[in-house]
Amino acid sequence: MAVYTEISEQELDALVAQYRIGAVRSCKGIAEGVENSNFLLTTEQGNFFLTLYEKRVNSADLPFFLGLLDHLAARGIPCPTPIHGTDGKAIRQCAGRPAAIVTFLQGLSHRRIAASDCAELGAALARLHLAAADFPLRRANALSVESWRPLFAQSRPRAHEVMAGLDAALAGELDTLEKQWPRDLPRGVIHADLFPDNVFFLDGKVSGLIDFYFACNDALAYDVAICLNAWCFETDRSFNVTKARALLSGYATGRQLTAAEMAALPMLARGAALRFLLTRLYDWLHTPAGALVKPKDPLEYWHKLRFHRGVASPAAYGLA
Amino acid sequence: MAVYTEISEQELDALVAQYRIGAVRSCKGIAEGVENSNFLLTTEQGNFFLTLYEKRVNSADLPFFLGLLDHLAARGIPCPTPIHGTDGKAIRQCAGRPAAIVTFLQGLSHRRIAASDCAELGAALARLHLAAADFPLRRANALSVESWRPLFAQSRPRAHEVMAGLDAALAGELDTLEKQWPRDLPRGVIHADLFPDNVFFLDGKVSGLIDFYFACNDALAYDVAICLNAWCFETDRSFNVTKARALLSGYATGRQLTAAEMAALPMLARGAALRFLLTRLYDWLHTPAGALVKPKDPLEYWHKLRFHRGVASPAAYGLA
Repeated sequence: MAVYTEISEQELDALVAQYRIGAVRSCKGIAEGVENSNFLLTTEQGNFFLTLYEKRVNSADLPFFLGLLDHLAARGIPCPTPIHGTDGKAIRQCAGRPAAIVTFLQGLSHRRIAASDCAELGAALARLHLAAADFPLRRANALSVESWRPLFAQSRPRAHEVMAGLDAALAGELDTLEKQWPRDLPRGVIHADLFPDNVFFLDGKVSGLIDFYFACNDALAYDVAICLNAWCFETDRSFNVTKARALLSGYATGRQLTAAEMAALPMLARGAALRFLLTRLYDWLHTPAGALVKPKDPLEYWHKLRFHRGVASPAAYGLA
Repeated sequence: MAVYTEISEQELDALVAQYRIGAVRSCKGIAEGVENSNFLLTTEQGNFFLTLYEKRVNSADLPFFLGLLDHLAARGIPCPTPIHGTDGKAIRQCAGRPAAIVTFLQGLSHRRIAASDCAELGAALARLHLAAADFPLRRANALSVESWRPLFAQSRPRAHEVMAGLDAALAGELDTLEKQWPRDLPRGVIHADLFPDNVFFLDGKVSGLIDFYFACNDALAYDVAICLNAWCFETDRSFNVTKARALLSGYATGRQLTAAEMAALPMLARGAALRFLLTRLYDWLHTPAGALVKPKDPLEYWHKLRFHRGVASPAAYGLA
């Protein structure tokens, strides 16, 4: 939750005048998103969502992100649809930052996850993968296996502060993952951060997928592995195989995992757990005490990683 | 900016089912208000504003606050209008806290204040005072002259940390104000916190007055004095008499200040400056380093207080 930038009425009017969405009626900072400043913008034409991109988002990536949303929305994926200005552009400047106005999505993210949510999520993820298949732009995954070791190096000297022995354990895990990381799986555009926060539901169905600012080209099954981590563990750290089975069955309604993808799932899930462990560990050790955003517990992902390490076969995820 | 309480979908659905506003379509925490948790609630019937009252608001005061909004809205004041449930009640429980749903107001608060804004604000304040005249409930001003000395006592030992000599200066100021505080002025319901943040404009006109959680019974002219402090100083600390004249002229379009009120204005303005200085000083010295809400600079009000102390007559505020 954060609003980093305030916008004056003059700046806002000047921005909105470049679109065909009517005059501004209100604009409220929203406690959502930690990377950017987000506002609920109400105009004569209704509710919109205004984002100012703060420096954590590379502005060179914005054509990929906004173009992807255009592409997906045109194919019926319930994602924010960029509003284009009278000049046709979707990205412009406001308050000294890149800015975009997108449609306002209905729905609520679920905090208590039901197995039926996982089935819906899996199906939505498969539809996303299929719809993005012919998206022409490319963006490398800046948080894939090659980046984990340098990321770890920035936290390693203080990793023991979080848990005794964590530094050695992660070093060993990195060795394994670098050697065994699956590299010849079907690739495409992945969301790469499809946590429950980023999925809205309405009447039990997925009504919105948001926050595409980690989207990139990578193995499609890696996206599935991220979702297994994000959706299928209980707060007591146990893995809920019923939810995993529901997620994978939901995915299969849109896209069948190949045999190689199924076989790779335990390793992909281990890698996904390590990726979130490492970014959380970095944030945990590097966030100043007075920061607006509280860092999330990295050890949650240590326990998930240990689960995946103990997985003997993809059957542990409910695959037949 | 703050959202202190998160609401689950189940809690939200259960709350909204008690009203006639249709089903929930979305709910977003808003970075607005420091006392309560505020949400933009969208239902099938449009936008609403949901507040959960955190402990800083005394729930025994809620019938006064919500009743006042009902009373004012019925008289055409552009304030949030409480939505009453199917049982007729406007105050109920959600997520373990008192909760209320009110109408969503259009407009934007101004950060750069024009003299014309002050004129509009003054007129809106007078309309508010007149509309509240027959409101039957009573609430004492918990932050009036009697409360300043005990409030000061909690900050006095560390006041020098903010400015050398501030403790002695404030002690002397308190002595003067307690002796000379005007006590026989026309009274009524005052907003008591009508800062630019709490006033929305649309097309140059006041479209919304919000945040009535300091409203109470006190001298009407004290409300005017609070606004002189909040609206008529420039960021370079200078007093803008053109804005003050506009504010007072605007007020006079709805309600004439009596001769006694005019004569009391410099002392009321001093008191108002001290009141905000003392609460800011308290927050400055007592807010933990990691708090979500950054305390505001108390010395801004020290400079305002010094200005009012140097005022020889109400003419300094532009009164003829």
